[in-house]
Amino acid sequence: MTTSRLEAFSDGVLAVIITIMVLELHVPEEPTLHALWHDTGPGLLTYLLSFVYIGIYWNNHHHMFQLAEHVNGAVLWANLALLFVLSLYPFTTAWLDESIIEHGFDEHTPVVVYGVNLLAAAIAYYLLQLAIFRAEGADSRLREAVGSDLKGKLSPGLYILGIASAAWIHPLVGIAFFVAVAIIWLVPDRRLEQYVVQHSS
Amino acid sequence: MTTSRLEAFSDGVLAVIITIMVLELHVPEEPTLHALWHDTGPGLLTYLLSFVYIGIYWNNHHHMFQLAEHVNGAVLWANLALLFVLSLYPFTTAWLDESIIEHGFDEHTPVVVYGVNLLAAAIAYYLLQLAIFRAEGADSRLREAVGSDLKGKLSPGLYILGIASAAWIHPLVGIAFFVAVAIIWLVPDRRLEQYVVQHSS
Amino acid sequence: MTTSRLEAFSDGVLAVIITIMVLELHVPEEPTLHALWHDTGPGLLTYLLSFVYIGIYWNNHHHMFQLAEHVNGAVLWANLALLFVLSLYPFTTAWLDESIIEHGFDEHTPVVVYGVNLLAAAIAYYLLQLAIFRAEGADSRLREAVGSDLKGKLSPGLYILGIASAAWIHPLVGIAFFVAVAIIWLVPDRRLEQYVVQHSS
Amino acid sequence: MTTSRLEAFSDGVLAVIITIMVLELHVPEEPTLHALWHDTGPGLLTYLLSFVYIGIYWNNHHHMFQLAEHVNGAVLWANLALLFVLSLYPFTTAWLDESIIEHGFDEHTPVVVYGVNLLAAAIAYYLLQLAIFRAEGADSRLREAVGSDLKGKLSPGLYILGIASAAWIHPLVGIAFFVAVAIIWLVPDRRLEQYVVQHSS
Repeated sequence: MTTSRLEAFSDGVLAVIITIMVLELHVPEEPTLHALWHDTGPGLLTYLLSFVYIGIYWNNHHHMFQLAEHVNGAVLWANLALLFVLSLYPFTTAWLDESIIEHGFDEHTPVVVYGVNLLAAAIAYYLLQLAIFRAEGADSRLREAVGSDLKGKLSPGLYILGIASAAWIHPLVGIAFFVAVAIIWLVPDRRLEQYVVQHSS
Repeated sequence: MTTSRLEAFSDGVLAVIITIMVLELHVPEEPTLHALWHDTGPGLLTYLLSFVYIGIYWNNHHHMFQLAEHVNGAVLWANLALLFVLSLYPFTTAWLDESIIEHGFDEHTPVVVYGVNLLAAAIAYYLLQLAIFRAEGADSRLREAVGSDLKGKLSPGLYILGIASAAWIHPLVGIAFFVAVAIIWLVPDRRLEQYVVQHSS
Repeated sequence: MTTSRLEAFSDGVLAVIITIMVLELHVPEEPTLHALWHDTGPGLLTYLLSFVYIGIYWNNHHHMFQLAEHVNGAVLWANLALLFVLSLYPFTTAWLDESIIEHGFDEHTPVVVYGVNLLAAAIAYYLLQLAIFRAEGADSRLREAVGSDLKGKLSPGLYILGIASAAWIHPLVGIAFFVAVAIIWLVPDRRLEQYVVQHSS
Repeated sequence: MTTSRLEAFSDGVLAVIITIMVLELHVPEEPTLHALWHDTGPGLLTYLLSFVYIGIYWNNHHHMFQLAEHVNGAVLWANLALLFVLSLYPFTTAWLDESIIEHGFDEHTPVVVYGVNLLAAAIAYYLLQLAIFRAEGADSRLREAVGSDLKGKLSPGLYILGIASAAWIHPLVGIAFFVAVAIIWLVPDRRLEQYVVQHSS
């Protein structure tokens, strides 16, 4: 069973997710830069953050399935679970956006929920990786390439710190954590990339 | 005539269907967990159920067209009929969701209509399978692999029981049937999978 | 230059068009079958009609590019022009739907505009065919397969009759013409299909 | 690392962008041609302009990745940056549309913002080209094919002139510049096309 249709379907879902978030942007009520800043500014920033996250998942997903060779039912469903969690980003992003427009950075609940969504995606991605390891057996090229996976282990911890900070310190501290994780991942994952370059037939 | 473009188009449609359902989620009016539970909770559960159903159809569609080799006009249109019925899921899901938010589980009509949508999809899928059998003739690999198709025969009966329960007993009993069918299908279809593994060239 | 990416992009656009039309369906305001019939019935029928039309175009597009071998700039832009016209279907369908809900079948303007959209799509499709003929030169397999193209010549005439009927006789007569053309096309285009079967390598 | 999945994902995103813009079209409130002209006319024209721009980018993207052979992390992220900027078109187009409906062509801010979006896309495209050049090294076929790239150098200048005109002369002068650039690009890019034809294996 090849991975190509699974990749194509995932690409389709991620492409729609990444794009429908733009529907949440509020068209300013007045034709002025001030209204643009006030009505659309927060939406633009939260959209950018979620876009980067979806981009990171697409990127990693792309690398992961270049090395994965075997797909079974467990992998298909783990992949769908990841797509489900990612498909909630437009919703949690919209709530975060509306909360910032109406209440500034005073409300912590939407930030906490956004962080829980990020954390859930990290867990779903990890489970997908496990499902591929199991499908491929002992000589999995992916397992070898992933290695110690520092970023993958660090991210959930940072998400949890961000959630806790948003809940008990200040929503902005939580957001700062979520931005930091995105930046960590933006630095390209040379580990997988090098492995692909070295072991590609 | 190859099946690849039919699969790509179906993937595209299913990817959009699965993702636009998230647009129906109500952003809570207050930035509190209580508002999230009240405004978005029912939508999240109905979205999850419909997402799983679309995932099941994508999964089965994927397996079916791995074995199908011949596509003719009847197969193309049977496939479009299936996509049409599936494209109504966002609508029937949204109605179910709004009904639950406004009336709790007291109203049976949206549950019945949701069940009819599920039943219609099962029938459309069955017709698509028949169209492929007919296009492939006596030595269809798909026909051989599908075999007695217990799940496929069981599901419509359970949908009808669910519809009847929702109409005459209680909406929640109907929903319980629909959840049960989804769980039955989540158990991976080892029959087809094994056949593909054994007979793949 | 191969046709595969042009086909993939067109599939993506058509998949989105076909699916976002469902967003126009009005969720009934009451949880009753009567409200479903009144609020959603017209939308369901106009959606079905437009879905069938998009399906027909996808189908014909699919057959056309199985025979087309050469793609140049003119073909790319003729294809985009077709996609633009088709992307207006959700809009003209929504207007038709709202007009029927509010005014019954008494208003002719939305029916006329819907017919003009259908006619524009037929013209765009014809221009795309011409562009492919020109790109392929004298020995175009597509030109040979299309032959006299009775349906393609008949449809614009029927659209014009439908538009005129909607404008001067009654909107329902116009809609009857548009339904009739859809049914004509639903009968599979054996001409192209046979040619593909006979000449496929 | 092949370019095929990057192209497929970009196609998906562009297909969704190009199509969700149609959701911004206002369904006329009255079933008359006058209401269609007044409520939908500006939206139709701005939609057409943005559709042509997305079509141009798809076209150029298509040509570019036919010549690109190497994809690395920088190319992936430069591509995502381009998709992000292009995904804002539905938003800036909707604002332009609403401004024209409510204020005619008197308001310059939405025109300026639309122009800034066009300019940002041109810059992102240029950065993507640079990233490919760098990934491919000295013997990049793309670099050779692009050559002096007159259009690519001209466009940002014309966008800036359009933005300045919209800000200090009249919004319509700005729009005229943006239409002019679209027309320049509509003339097919024979340079790349010829190169592809000559050097395709």
